[in-house]
Amino acid sequence: MIGRLVVVGVGLIGGSFAAALRRAGAVAEVVGLGRSRAALGRAQELGLIDAAYDDAAQALRGADLVMLAMPVGATRAALERIAPHLGPATIVTDAGSTKSDVVAAARAALGAAFPRFVPGHPIAGAEKSGADAAFAELFQGRKTVLTPVAETSPDAAREVRAAWVACGADVREMPAEAHDAIFAAVSHLPHLLAYALVHEVASRPEAGTLFEYAASGFRDFTRIASSHPEMWRDVCVANRAALSRELARYRAALDAMQRLVDAGDGPALEAVFRDAREARDRWIAGRQ
Amino acid sequence: MIGRLVVVGVGLIGGSFAAALRRAGAVAEVVGLGRSRAALGRAQELGLIDAAYDDAAQALRGADLVMLAMPVGATRAALERIAPHLGPATIVTDAGSTKSDVVAAARAALGAAFPRFVPGHPIAGAEKSGADAAFAELFQGRKTVLTPVAETSPDAAREVRAAWVACGADVREMPAEAHDAIFAAVSHLPHLLAYALVHEVASRPEAGTLFEYAASGFRDFTRIASSHPEMWRDVCVANRAALSRELARYRAALDAMQRLVDAGDGPALEAVFRDAREARDRWIAGRQ
Repeated sequence: MIGRLVVVGVGLIGGSFAAALRRAGAVAEVVGLGRSRAALGRAQELGLIDAAYDDAAQALRGADLVMLAMPVGATRAALERIAPHLGPATIVTDAGSTKSDVVAAARAALGAAFPRFVPGHPIAGAEKSGADAAFAELFQGRKTVLTPVAETSPDAAREVRAAWVACGADVREMPAEAHDAIFAAVSHLPHLLAYALVHEVASRPEAGTLFEYAASGFRDFTRIASSHPEMWRDVCVANRAALSRELARYRAALDAMQRLVDAGDGPALEAVFRDAREARDRWIAGRQ
Repeated sequence: MIGRLVVVGVGLIGGSFAAALRRAGAVAEVVGLGRSRAALGRAQELGLIDAAYDDAAQALRGADLVMLAMPVGATRAALERIAPHLGPATIVTDAGSTKSDVVAAARAALGAAFPRFVPGHPIAGAEKSGADAAFAELFQGRKTVLTPVAETSPDAAREVRAAWVACGADVREMPAEAHDAIFAAVSHLPHLLAYALVHEVASRPEAGTLFEYAASGFRDFTRIASSHPEMWRDVCVANRAALSRELARYRAALDAMQRLVDAGDGPALEAVFRDAREARDRWIAGRQ
């Protein structure tokens, strides 16, 4: 049982984490910490938090667990803000989409408290953001990846794992670098590609006509281009090394596709399409 | 009222066209023409067609309208097969995803009957294909684009338009070249990009791990990579001039994205993402 949970960033992820723990009876008190009275007031109105603080010392008094749920670019500043006020047993975790950079920031900002920092990433997002989008079932059956390092306290990792299990998540562990490489390929790159396509189409004089004839294929392909721009800016900057490698690989794949298209090489195109469909269909079947 | 409708290719599109016309009371008799007894037998079992023929002369006897619904690469051969048996008033249309190549094929294959050929493209697809996927509501509220040429008989175009209206479609007209340029951008390119991404991921030694962590963003982004490989091979070959231009533009856009990622240029990435999200959100709002 978590006595006091402090959520920094009571949006979709932070708010849903609080709601899920509360629904599971796994937390006694949830407080929000932040500078926007309006956002915290709304979270309180929605019943996601019991109290709202803009003072870190007050919020962190007697805290068992602190959840940092914000664009990864803001994580370093948040860690620095809470660091001086952490109790000797307070555990800190985060929900950032990238992990190597967050680990580095925590190592620098938390000092002696670093072993009680457990880096995490729930694989549950949505184009929607903000406290109003939060709901207790968001993590049900979804993976949460924890990336503890050598110094991480096993007790702290166990507590954070238990919290995610209480939220209904399927908890996995791996090194931060492995996490960042995997998500660069299956999440960060597709977001970048979708944003780039919509931006390219929207920037043309005939954009109106193009959008008029765009159908459900375009809609689904670009769904993730309705994601939060600041969050994805931070992801792309924080994970730029791995993302750069993925983008370069994909550009090479498109160079090859361009050659096939220009040559009108039907059999080679069909082989690529067939292989892709089979791989995707196997994946979809395995998910169900 | 269409007396006899001949559907060549009783799959998702051809079968749904027949079902929609029948539901609207706009057709008296639907016959299927093809070489696969099994496929036609299934279509007959499903009530999509009243009779099945493998002989073009028999199928076309007294036909008012012929619908060619097949991968565009097979259209030329189908046109050549039906050409000798067309009655003096029989109208021919198609449902191919590309139009310039189909117009050229019809001009070459139909000779004196070419003015009664009305090129068409219903903007309604699905990853599913085959007669079992067909349903009468498929075209309801969806656009169908007709691309008649100077020689096309206005009466024939009117008949085909009326058939699509009876199916519930929102019928538009434009030149074949405009059609092909638009769909290269908003349909053919996204399909190619989705296929290429899944193929690239699936070809790696660590593909299993990558797919294990792929989530709903990847699922939706790649939905169209579960589309019919032969159909999309034909589209890419038939429309390779326009698709090649689109792919080149997109590759240039990705070159620019690579520079921004490598430079860690957060503000510039955010500007692209914000612009894309706004454009997409406006488009989605306008669709509803």
